[in-house]
Amino acid sequence: MSGVKRIEPRTLRGFRDYLPQAMIPRERLIDTARRVYRSYGFSPIDTPALEYLEILTGKGSEETDKQLYKFEDQGGRAVGMRFDLTVPFARFAAQHIAELGVPFKRYHIAAVWRGENTQRGRYREFMQCDFDTIGTRAAAADIETALVIHDLMRAVGFEFRQNLDFTIRVNNRMVLAGLLERIGLAEQATAVLRALDKLAKIGPEKVAAEMEAAAGATPEQAADVLKLAALSGGNAQVLSALEPLVAGSEKGQEGVSRLAELLAAVAAAGVSEERIRLDVSIARGLDYYTGTIFETFLDRLPTIGSVCSGGRYDNLAGLYTNQELPGIGASLGLDRLLAAMEELGMLPKVATPAEVFIPYFVAERLHDYLRLAARLREAGLGVEFYPEPKRLGHQLKYADRRGFPVAIIIGEDEFAKDQCQIKNLVHGETRSVELNAASQYDVAVAAISAVLKRIRDNPTEI
Amino acid sequence: MSGVKRIEPRTLRGFRDYLPQAMIPRERLIDTARRVYRSYGFSPIDTPALEYLEILTGKGSEETDKQLYKFEDQGGRAVGMRFDLTVPFARFAAQHIAELGVPFKRYHIAAVWRGENTQRGRYREFMQCDFDTIGTRAAAADIETALVIHDLMRAVGFEFRQNLDFTIRVNNRMVLAGLLERIGLAEQATAVLRALDKLAKIGPEKVAAEMEAAAGATPEQAADVLKLAALSGGNAQVLSALEPLVAGSEKGQEGVSRLAELLAAVAAAGVSEERIRLDVSIARGLDYYTGTIFETFLDRLPTIGSVCSGGRYDNLAGLYTNQELPGIGASLGLDRLLAAMEELGMLPKVATPAEVFIPYFVAERLHDYLRLAARLREAGLGVEFYPEPKRLGHQLKYADRRGFPVAIIIGEDEFAKDQCQIKNLVHGETRSVELNAASQYDVAVAAISAVLKRIRDNPTEI
Repeated sequence: MSGVKRIEPRTLRGFRDYLPQAMIPRERLIDTARRVYRSYGFSPIDTPALEYLEILTGKGSEETDKQLYKFEDQGGRAVGMRFDLTVPFARFAAQHIAELGVPFKRYHIAAVWRGENTQRGRYREFMQCDFDTIGTRAAAADIETALVIHDLMRAVGFEFRQNLDFTIRVNNRMVLAGLLERIGLAEQATAVLRALDKLAKIGPEKVAAEMEAAAGATPEQAADVLKLAALSGGNAQVLSALEPLVAGSEKGQEGVSRLAELLAAVAAAGVSEERIRLDVSIARGLDYYTGTIFETFLDRLPTIGSVCSGGRYDNLAGLYTNQELPGIGASLGLDRLLAAMEELGMLPKVATPAEVFIPYFVAERLHDYLRLAARLREAGLGVEFYPEPKRLGHQLKYADRRGFPVAIIIGEDEFAKDQCQIKNLVHGETRSVELNAASQYDVAVAAISAVLKRIRDNPTEI
Repeated sequence: MSGVKRIEPRTLRGFRDYLPQAMIPRERLIDTARRVYRSYGFSPIDTPALEYLEILTGKGSEETDKQLYKFEDQGGRAVGMRFDLTVPFARFAAQHIAELGVPFKRYHIAAVWRGENTQRGRYREFMQCDFDTIGTRAAAADIETALVIHDLMRAVGFEFRQNLDFTIRVNNRMVLAGLLERIGLAEQATAVLRALDKLAKIGPEKVAAEMEAAAGATPEQAADVLKLAALSGGNAQVLSALEPLVAGSEKGQEGVSRLAELLAAVAAAGVSEERIRLDVSIARGLDYYTGTIFETFLDRLPTIGSVCSGGRYDNLAGLYTNQELPGIGASLGLDRLLAAMEELGMLPKVATPAEVFIPYFVAERLHDYLRLAARLREAGLGVEFYPEPKRLGHQLKYADRRGFPVAIIIGEDEFAKDQCQIKNLVHGETRSVELNAASQYDVAVAAISAVLKRIRDNPTEI
């Protein structure tokens, strides 16, 4: 290839390669999400990366339209790359709901693309992990959404370890709507919501000013809204404080009773009160939501924002069908959660998915190594065999760099004695065990499993 | 939304939605591939869907260039959507190999896009499942590739059931290269290969004619090549027949001895001779391969072609780096294999990933249902709870439509007696068992597991 002009190997700005050390925890998190979604009967679906442009721009704001990757395809069609999973799901539901039937529960884990400004540290390609139940207004679907978020966070590793608590904050849009009805601001709901959504960032005074300026609220009306948002305390306490604030508004009362029902039911299903808090200050930006809303915060990293959010909506697919499809869903913020887990030291620093490393030591014993490796894999172990009989030191450096916990060393001496050395690379211990081909290497399998268990139980002991 | 102009919900030609019934086996197959790759120490990576256009067109043929989805992005860059995983891997390797070190073993499972002619039944978006070992010329890496393909096919369900045998066909490019050297056709290797690749389709006479026309072979030279390709019989028999044909060519002899070494080693690792056959007629179209090559056929569906193919190459990333990266890899043909499995009746016809369906029967017992469902999930069962207390018949029809194997029915009577009915929806049997909240519903959990086992063991009995 000398004389050939080389092309500089690089990725586009805002896009990234995932090397094994980043990809292994990413795959694990996706697997966990999938497992939890499935355990509630949510089914997987997938939709194309490319859609007709009119599908994608149908509901989009000016901002998403600007960020869309769009072009004309070989057949002269105007097409675009999906920028979220909600629009494709709405299109999908409109197209297939007759065949699928309702209620329909789906999860969808896939990449989306937005030509965002990368100066804000945003990526232009990222993964979304959504789950939704559509075709029902039942309170049980709202309750289940809270349970899924709760199980998901625990399955990922939160709460089980010290100081890794999380809090699901729940609210219901109908509560604020009820209050606005009562104080005569119902028509300005969107502007009020938009202002209120900034409460944590800009504080109550600026929110009041914005409500007055943008929603035409009087200072008294703004104060009433902020009084609602300022309610705090235990769930029962907040619930009783809410009742007088929405008195006389049917919508507001329904919101409060839905919240009460949800909190009681998740408690019955085993969720402790510290994990799910009624927080009337959360509003969520989108107009789209009409009932229960959720956000999920990590107690030790509150500033990163919500890692799993969602809520109830009245009509998913009105742009594409006249069938009304109410539903509720939420989305796991995969990249945000991974960044948080990294910061909290929850991610293993390994670049291999296998546990056992077998160096290739005695060149003419290839078949023996392969037989042992095959047997260990049958027993459920992940086993990498080094392909070349290089110096042992070189091979162990390779194993160390990739983060294997265990190496099985078999040299001339060990072959002569039908033995192997099991090296615990985490604690620096070695033991010799019998290598009996006739018994299917059972002793070795058991010993390796014991060493791996010891490492799992004491990951950092020295 | 009345009066609103609706957008027709549709997908682009050549693209498709995956509904649960199609997506569930798809996810399962991907999981299986991932598990097998990982068990050999292959690590996951990912690369962006979009690349600089020059990266993608660097090596492309005119055909792939024509099929490329390409456009100018918001920043005025010429970009394209990846059309395979090999080019992005070459770019990735060139960029990161110093950090990763060699040998480097990766798998990559991701969508690719080609604006193909859909009249041939091709899709424009499909998944590739590749694994490769780069940075080594070791025979052990070739052997391991064969073992991965073997384990993968078995893990997917082939061979374990009657009449679902598969055959991995192996060859080595060096054998033909050696023969061509010996008979003086080495310079025309590419044209000879291209002709030979059509052997199964067009037969020996037309292949001979093409070799004469396109490669300038004499009838005697063409006959020599076809004699090689016609060798058949057991692996040992073919190996001995090959030796005289490549005598005097160092390359040819190395090819034969590499094949002998590979066949002996995979046998030692437990692969039976019927599963891996030396087949000197396979050539594989691409110039790219230089050593061992593989194809994998389903014995009952030979005409669908190879479901897992690959081979050894000398230099992966010559377009992007001067570091030579020899390697070997293969790719699972996910869509082709799924279509075959469907045809062979190997795919379950279910639209839910959960096993247990709980109808919502007694409205005021919501908390009791939720508690039971939570406990069953803790015990590892997938449980869907219907969100509305509709008629039982309606709910069971829903369960039936989705293919749940088991329903747990708890009505007023059952609540009164602390019992539930476990309905085996496959065999149409029902049994009552105790529902003891104090014992964490252990009796019910055990009984449900027993029913599910019975269904797994007798999936179609009636």
